[in-house]
Amino acid sequence: MNQITPVILCGGSGTRLWPLSRKAKPKPFLPLVGTDSLFEATLARASDPGLFAAPIVVAGAAHVGLIESQLPAGSGASVIVEPEGKNTAAAIALAALRLPADAVMLVCPSDHHIADQAAFADAAVRAAALARDGWLVSFGIAATRPETGYGYIKRGKALDGGYRIERFVEKPDRATAEAWLAEGGYCWNGGIFAFRVGTFLEELARLRPAMAEAVGQAIAAGRSDGGRFHPDAAAFARIVSESVDYAVMEGTGHAAMVEADMGWSDIGNWEALRDARAGEAGGGADDAGNIAKGEADLLDCRNVMVQSDGPRVSVVGLDDVIVVVDGGEVLVTSARGAAQVGKLKGASNQ
Amino acid sequence: MNQITPVILCGGSGTRLWPLSRKAKPKPFLPLVGTDSLFEATLARASDPGLFAAPIVVAGAAHVGLIESQLPAGSGASVIVEPEGKNTAAAIALAALRLPADAVMLVCPSDHHIADQAAFADAAVRAAALARDGWLVSFGIAATRPETGYGYIKRGKALDGGYRIERFVEKPDRATAEAWLAEGGYCWNGGIFAFRVGTFLEELARLRPAMAEAVGQAIAAGRSDGGRFHPDAAAFARIVSESVDYAVMEGTGHAAMVEADMGWSDIGNWEALRDARAGEAGGGADDAGNIAKGEADLLDCRNVMVQSDGPRVSVVGLDDVIVVVDGGEVLVTSARGAAQVGKLKGASNQ
Repeated sequence: MNQITPVILCGGSGTRLWPLSRKAKPKPFLPLVGTDSLFEATLARASDPGLFAAPIVVAGAAHVGLIESQLPAGSGASVIVEPEGKNTAAAIALAALRLPADAVMLVCPSDHHIADQAAFADAAVRAAALARDGWLVSFGIAATRPETGYGYIKRGKALDGGYRIERFVEKPDRATAEAWLAEGGYCWNGGIFAFRVGTFLEELARLRPAMAEAVGQAIAAGRSDGGRFHPDAAAFARIVSESVDYAVMEGTGHAAMVEADMGWSDIGNWEALRDARAGEAGGGADDAGNIAKGEADLLDCRNVMVQSDGPRVSVVGLDDVIVVVDGGEVLVTSARGAAQVGKLKGASNQ
Repeated sequence: MNQITPVILCGGSGTRLWPLSRKAKPKPFLPLVGTDSLFEATLARASDPGLFAAPIVVAGAAHVGLIESQLPAGSGASVIVEPEGKNTAAAIALAALRLPADAVMLVCPSDHHIADQAAFADAAVRAAALARDGWLVSFGIAATRPETGYGYIKRGKALDGGYRIERFVEKPDRATAEAWLAEGGYCWNGGIFAFRVGTFLEELARLRPAMAEAVGQAIAAGRSDGGRFHPDAAAFARIVSESVDYAVMEGTGHAAMVEADMGWSDIGNWEALRDARAGEAGGGADDAGNIAKGEADLLDCRNVMVQSDGPRVSVVGLDDVIVVVDGGEVLVTSARGAAQVGKLKGASNQ
């Protein structure tokens, strides 16, 4: 049986978990849920040698040290060091060009949380089978609420283990999201993909020939350095940043999806992190739904999350509030307000 | 015209403004509203030489240094150093015994805020006149809300410039407080009193002879030390702690009151402090009612108060929340929850 090659994408800075997540130590490398970092958990999720080959990690130079310190011994991982961030289409193409044409890649963002490992593995197997048949496969995350922060995928005709994708849809407004949730057949686009390398590169060359050519040059003129590969910066600089959804998935005639109900979260803000922790077995939520990391004294509180790197945090008479003390910064946000944290002075002027 | 002698009481520790107010620097000595401490403002309020004589301050040994550092030059103030706290009846008796029998004392807690100086002076003049006529006079604070945290005074028959007190009533429940507010004639008992010294001591001797005797001994066996007077500790130790309300006012047949509508607050907790600041001209409340002392970044907030001794505090999407960072402690409380702050571990284990 052919193994699946995990391609772990470590781009993106993420200001919405400020002050914990900062430029110098971004979200994938923090132990946000449980004791492993999201990156470590992503690697562990795709580490069963019965299913998975050694992973390829695609990241910026600033984070290579962090990545190598978090790679488990004997992982056999290689790291592709992007000269600059060029979004997901180029990052995936770099990894594809380092693999044989008949390999199957499982593209995983490094900063998501997935609670149900078995459901993930099951979806990965179905997606890989479809990918081997020539489909470009998205994971469609079972929608559990009328979320307006994600793109959606509309399910089409059934395939073996999945569906054709009828269409991709942008972030909806609230009413639309509620209608889709009621109607069914709409999944969140979670940014996880399975591609046969050859199929992906053919479609990229057809849909974005300039990008395919520039990535090919960057790989051809690149150099290896132990477990690291450095694509050529000049060639890579010519690439126009585009997401793989926009550059490839929306244009291909071979878009498919597998449905995955696997306790997924993109941990996109403090509210999402609180919810992921609350849903975790032994995640530390007490009977009132309160979660504390660090010294906290909560009185008459419900669904409050406190995280402190030192100072004691005392909270009285509040519901659905998140308090973070980290590196001399204090953040207090309502759960609903958490989506706005990136707009704070501290988050934007790092 | 006889001047009024201010007697400033500095007892009480106060844990409800933790973490700002602590044992080592309690509430009266902090600049909570404006730039003066409450103690300094209390002195200033009773400093018009046309009305007031030099003040007597009654305080515990732990705070004498703070008091002397905050006394203005040339105040002529003397300090009576209590060997231990014995509540207000004994504290007032100590001051009374250091004054001639025909002096009029104006007893003022040192940790209240009064916004309207003219209304205070007017009430003081009326109260002093009644005191000279032999009445023991409470300030009845005009009730502006159905407060359940204060004792009340029921107004009786009119006197010149005031009223007899019909009765004292304990802290009511909410429904009772609302009924009283609607009915009128009930004022808050603000703990401010005017007494002719001789009258007060006669009533104390009649109602609490043991206390009167012990305080007399403590003064007789005490010693002066510059501007300080140290009552005898052994004699003072025999006193049973009682409030002046309980020991004298509720038992006397000469209880009177003056009504005072003077923007009074006992700054009893963080919500009260926020409200006092919000009501102050130039108190710093913005259009959304937010108040910040120290570095704060408020996004989508209303009626939020932030106070920080250093770290930046960023708040998102909250209403009616108070955040205090002081001495390495972080407090986050709803305005309503502020009354419970004294129950926190940090406040009770100082």
